[in-house]
Amino acid sequence: MRLQHATWQEVEAYLQHKRGVIVPIGSTEQHGPTGLLGTDAICPEVIAWELGKRHEVLVAPTQNLGMAQHHLAFPGTISLRPTTLIAVLRDTIESLAGHGFRHILFLNGHGGNIATLSAAFAEVYAERSMRRGGEPAAPLHLSTHNWFAGPRVRKLAESLYGDAEGTHATASEIALSWYAHPESIKQAELTPRVAPRGSAGCDADEFRRRFPDGRMGSDPALASIEQGQQLFEAGVMDCWEAYRAFIDTV
Amino acid sequence: MRLQHATWQEVEAYLQHKRGVIVPIGSTEQHGPTGLLGTDAICPEVIAWELGKRHEVLVAPTQNLGMAQHHLAFPGTISLRPTTLIAVLRDTIESLAGHGFRHILFLNGHGGNIATLSAAFAEVYAERSMRRGGEPAAPLHLSTHNWFAGPRVRKLAESLYGDAEGTHATASEIALSWYAHPESIKQAELTPRVAPRGSAGCDADEFRRRFPDGRMGSDPALASIEQGQQLFEAGVMDCWEAYRAFIDTV
Amino acid sequence: MRLQHATWQEVEAYLQHKRGVIVPIGSTEQHGPTGLLGTDAICPEVIAWELGKRHEVLVAPTQNLGMAQHHLAFPGTISLRPTTLIAVLRDTIESLAGHGFRHILFLNGHGGNIATLSAAFAEVYAERSMRRGGEPAAPLHLSTHNWFAGPRVRKLAESLYGDAEGTHATASEIALSWYAHPESIKQAELTPRVAPRGSAGCDADEFRRRFPDGRMGSDPALASIEQGQQLFEAGVMDCWEAYRAFIDTV
Amino acid sequence: MRLQHATWQEVEAYLQHKRGVIVPIGSTEQHGPTGLLGTDAICPEVIAWELGKRHEVLVAPTQNLGMAQHHLAFPGTISLRPTTLIAVLRDTIESLAGHGFRHILFLNGHGGNIATLSAAFAEVYAERSMRRGGEPAAPLHLSTHNWFAGPRVRKLAESLYGDAEGTHATASEIALSWYAHPESIKQAELTPRVAPRGSAGCDADEFRRRFPDGRMGSDPALASIEQGQQLFEAGVMDCWEAYRAFIDTV
Amino acid sequence: MRLQHATWQEVEAYLQHKRGVIVPIGSTEQHGPTGLLGTDAICPEVIAWELGKRHEVLVAPTQNLGMAQHHLAFPGTISLRPTTLIAVLRDTIESLAGHGFRHILFLNGHGGNIATLSAAFAEVYAERSMRRGGEPAAPLHLSTHNWFAGPRVRKLAESLYGDAEGTHATASEIALSWYAHPESIKQAELTPRVAPRGSAGCDADEFRRRFPDGRMGSDPALASIEQGQQLFEAGVMDCWEAYRAFIDTV
Amino acid sequence: MRLQHATWQEVEAYLQHKRGVIVPIGSTEQHGPTGLLGTDAICPEVIAWELGKRHEVLVAPTQNLGMAQHHLAFPGTISLRPTTLIAVLRDTIESLAGHGFRHILFLNGHGGNIATLSAAFAEVYAERSMRRGGEPAAPLHLSTHNWFAGPRVRKLAESLYGDAEGTHATASEIALSWYAHPESIKQAELTPRVAPRGSAGCDADEFRRRFPDGRMGSDPALASIEQGQQLFEAGVMDCWEAYRAFIDTV
Repeated sequence: MRLQHATWQEVEAYLQHKRGVIVPIGSTEQHGPTGLLGTDAICPEVIAWELGKRHEVLVAPTQNLGMAQHHLAFPGTISLRPTTLIAVLRDTIESLAGHGFRHILFLNGHGGNIATLSAAFAEVYAERSMRRGGEPAAPLHLSTHNWFAGPRVRKLAESLYGDAEGTHATASEIALSWYAHPESIKQAELTPRVAPRGSAGCDADEFRRRFPDGRMGSDPALASIEQGQQLFEAGVMDCWEAYRAFIDTV
Repeated sequence: MRLQHATWQEVEAYLQHKRGVIVPIGSTEQHGPTGLLGTDAICPEVIAWELGKRHEVLVAPTQNLGMAQHHLAFPGTISLRPTTLIAVLRDTIESLAGHGFRHILFLNGHGGNIATLSAAFAEVYAERSMRRGGEPAAPLHLSTHNWFAGPRVRKLAESLYGDAEGTHATASEIALSWYAHPESIKQAELTPRVAPRGSAGCDADEFRRRFPDGRMGSDPALASIEQGQQLFEAGVMDCWEAYRAFIDTV
Repeated sequence: MRLQHATWQEVEAYLQHKRGVIVPIGSTEQHGPTGLLGTDAICPEVIAWELGKRHEVLVAPTQNLGMAQHHLAFPGTISLRPTTLIAVLRDTIESLAGHGFRHILFLNGHGGNIATLSAAFAEVYAERSMRRGGEPAAPLHLSTHNWFAGPRVRKLAESLYGDAEGTHATASEIALSWYAHPESIKQAELTPRVAPRGSAGCDADEFRRRFPDGRMGSDPALASIEQGQQLFEAGVMDCWEAYRAFIDTV
Repeated sequence: MRLQHATWQEVEAYLQHKRGVIVPIGSTEQHGPTGLLGTDAICPEVIAWELGKRHEVLVAPTQNLGMAQHHLAFPGTISLRPTTLIAVLRDTIESLAGHGFRHILFLNGHGGNIATLSAAFAEVYAERSMRRGGEPAAPLHLSTHNWFAGPRVRKLAESLYGDAEGTHATASEIALSWYAHPESIKQAELTPRVAPRGSAGCDADEFRRRFPDGRMGSDPALASIEQGQQLFEAGVMDCWEAYRAFIDTV
Repeated sequence: MRLQHATWQEVEAYLQHKRGVIVPIGSTEQHGPTGLLGTDAICPEVIAWELGKRHEVLVAPTQNLGMAQHHLAFPGTISLRPTTLIAVLRDTIESLAGHGFRHILFLNGHGGNIATLSAAFAEVYAERSMRRGGEPAAPLHLSTHNWFAGPRVRKLAESLYGDAEGTHATASEIALSWYAHPESIKQAELTPRVAPRGSAGCDADEFRRRFPDGRMGSDPALASIEQGQQLFEAGVMDCWEAYRAFIDTV
Repeated sequence: MRLQHATWQEVEAYLQHKRGVIVPIGSTEQHGPTGLLGTDAICPEVIAWELGKRHEVLVAPTQNLGMAQHHLAFPGTISLRPTTLIAVLRDTIESLAGHGFRHILFLNGHGGNIATLSAAFAEVYAERSMRRGGEPAAPLHLSTHNWFAGPRVRKLAESLYGDAEGTHATASEIALSWYAHPESIKQAELTPRVAPRGSAGCDADEFRRRFPDGRMGSDPALASIEQGQQLFEAGVMDCWEAYRAFIDTV
């Protein structure tokens, strides 16, 4: 069930017997000459929507903007500062917790969001921990699942691409985004075929110097729609497993 | 052209001859017993995407969360604080302006966002105005167009619904959202048919007391998909007109 | 009754039977070659003080600084950033609400404050709406009345100045400020007589380029002290009407 | 010259030969059974206006709200948080410095503002000190003069009231406020005549417990309008001396 | 060389030929019945000081407070909110970068700091990436090394304690802190010997419920001073290796 | 008792009969050619630790960074912005108050911290004063003692150094830091012997222009270890007296 396509009464009814929700979170950032700027949002979104259909879990609207400062030297990238993203996540979590949601899983498509998600969870918890006293707050469980790091996805990406999977504009995320949006497949020559490796811990000018076409260690020319479908199935299964383990947390 | 479905080189090419971009912005908030929680994002998004197709204007990802604090007593609503939304808009604008965009139009679907959008524009401008000196900053034009307030849309809504259009969960936005997502049409009894009128300037508990099922002055049972299509066409034309007038600003 | 000229016991006594308060809010910004930098504060202040005398309503101290970033290229302008003004208004409202005030009307003299006032109200309400639970907060009504937009004032300005009223350094606000401070009337040649029209949605350098002497669409040479007195009477009646309607809100 | 009563061209002309400005800053807080809530703003304001008249120094609008959290248990008090006041002062200083003012003297009427004024100056300087590089910023001198702590005022208060001067709702500030606003003189029985002494470093509930009628160590019944006039003259001379020494700083 | 024990001229001389600096960062939080509240600061500090002695690398003062909100239900814990810690790290980095330091390594003793350190680095870089234009900023390299995660330390802890190492109040950190402060060794009965395992992603009340005496999965009774010395040597070698690899980054 | 060297159970036991704690706070800033960058932290730390030993008062970890923006033009200085330091102090105080501490004394070694400490206390109190209602908060006493301003220390410094004590890099703080760290005594020629006097109220570039080698009005060549010991004894007695008077506050 997509929250955006539900009425408030449907959410109220859902809350009678379930307390979990999935929030897809991505980024809007360059993904090399053939990757879509929306790749990191598209991938978790398509998986989350499928979970919503298959398993009747509620899926909140996608957070399309993430922490992408290092990609800002490439046109089209839009980034939030970490402190801005923390505020967005805090307000999102407080809104959902106010309705009675107790398990909020962020289904993440961007490595650059991981630290800020974790800091945001701590910011929410810190508010509770510093104002202790009175009756204890209702339990609140917050977690991140990176779709690209699930065991089935990892294994499949390894078998399909080996080292050419890379770490940004990866072959597997390109494949999944093509499966989700076959009308938007792009062709471009990739030189070199496998992009240079290195660290993304730097500012935008330095990042572009290190990674001239935006890719990090990947050869997305290996990707295909069929592989995208396989990755989609693997991703749905990984994420469902992660979600089920998560909502059993007490 | 949807920015999320483009590559960075495509955006770079676009910037060779155009400097305008449209950013759909909505909200995730209750829209009465038959309206979708995502109505305010769905409506500007579907119009913006059509503008992208018809007129080759670039459309940034939709800002799905807005300023909806007064709806928080209804399950499913997710709100940002005004100061959080200002930070999101500031980072979005600074990112886009850094790439060379000079006209950024926010295509808005939620009355509750208008003041904060305006305050956010002033926050961005204030940073420039307070740090004057050195060479002047590149010109930057920021504006909001509310799809529901364009002349064709207003006239059509008036003729279709008269006073029963209302001011929240309006007949026209319900109709447009049904046109965009016919698979998500909801049925529910509306009592009373036309919801009470009043002001939304209050907190969430007070809002729910004033407007028990969430609607404000509207009878969305009047809506139909066909009307939604008419409103869609009117909205596309209104917004295109607004955008063209905007990008002529120098 | 002016709050600054009262003792705390007098305020305590007032709160035994009344719960409303008026807060004048202006700006310190250029008003063209003949307008005072304090015009936007002086106008609502003089009206508010008269209301305090005639109707025994409590009037808080004037907020002399507003959101005036677009005027910063003219010497003497002092602006708060929107986020700063939100913080000031939040603290002011929380202070007054803590004493038991339930209806707080901001009597505003500056168009550029309107959006930020609205965002500030939402910021205060959001804090309540996000922390729901426990016993509900006491009701709190917040509103803005722009003295220049009341029906009597609008009608009078239209009849006196027509199109030459303008939108900044207007003939009517100059007239009212002269009535309030006849000792500070200024003379200067205005070229052209009626200033150019346009939008104030830009930064300070751009604003000065658009409006070289600071006026927007106005011919304040039409103003006189006698008109100022008429506008004063109209403003006092408009504002009292607005205040009375406001405090009847429950 | 009062900035609020000047045009931007008059300020521009002033800046041709002078670079100093005085900003009166007070507070809106209880001053015991006979003191006005506006005392701390009224006192520096009346002195500053006189300096403007006698010595043609520019006087910015009064900051009517200060840091008065400890007085919030008394009706009518309005306080800014220290971080809010820092933001207000930062924006004020940046606005004035942008016009070319180089010496900004805050003429202060409230002991509770002193630390925050100092922190705000450091916040402004820190922005410069942390972003060093490029051409150095124009010199900027910031200072606070507390009217009540000038040598002539201190000596006079000592001779008039001795220990009964006290530290809040002092006899001398009551006298000066009466001189400034003889129409607002209040009468009330003071029990005990000399209020208890102690520290204001606590929250509002604790402050009211320590100082039941709001006064700290003072007997304002000793005050008279005549003494107010003497204090006014002493204050004007002290402040002018402080200002002249200040603007000689290079 | 410890920065706190150097003069500014000594730092100036150091910067003639070196551009790297180590900043120890810990936390002040409970470490079970036998662990010191300062364990997480003591461990990286003692390693950093040794590196300073052996290798003449500059060591900044220790950041004693970290992100420890989940430990706040145990007396003595002091935590910063993540957004506060981001501000502290931003100011620290900007101060050091302003002097010409180009490689800043945070030697970290607390797992709960890792995400916030990473978010803080991104906050600093984002400021640069969003304000691009003009001449590029000087290169700035930021990194975290967790002393407890170096290869030699991991291997040694595994061989000494196996699964009883745990994840908080670990046997290895207790051993190292005892080596550093043998005068502060504590004795207490640990029940159960090996503490329960689980996640620290929760607020303080929940954390204490999960981990009643504060330890997570560890048996610190296995620790000894001799092992602490071995861990110290392993840590010094790991950290030096990490630092040397880091300062070779260009 | 040093908090960093205690277990949480030891702090719990301490809180059974005592509610006071001392927090040393310094700065990391240049102290002239012979003074250590850590002087301002070292001095209160060594005194606080002695108090912990002699009188069994709990001593929290030292806040090594303070408000030192004016020293940033000298290599090695690290400064927090005032608003950052306020956030650090707020989190520290809230953490300690949450455990039941009621008297928190900051033992300060840096004049530049005094205003920000005071503003931070007011920030904490303001949160309580603005959210009044419900049951009153537990009493909380916050205070600063500047070790260098105690009566015994002042008298001793006067007798030892007279006017050559100065106001930064003072003879007395250099002497105390040498007593604390005799292994770090530095020798350098001081020209002129007694440094120029003046105000530190400016930014970093201006400060360095005024005070070329960093000292303000002092001749630290007068200092000796023996005097450092005398100052240490005087400081311990002054601080203990201040602490005892403080914890008697109710």
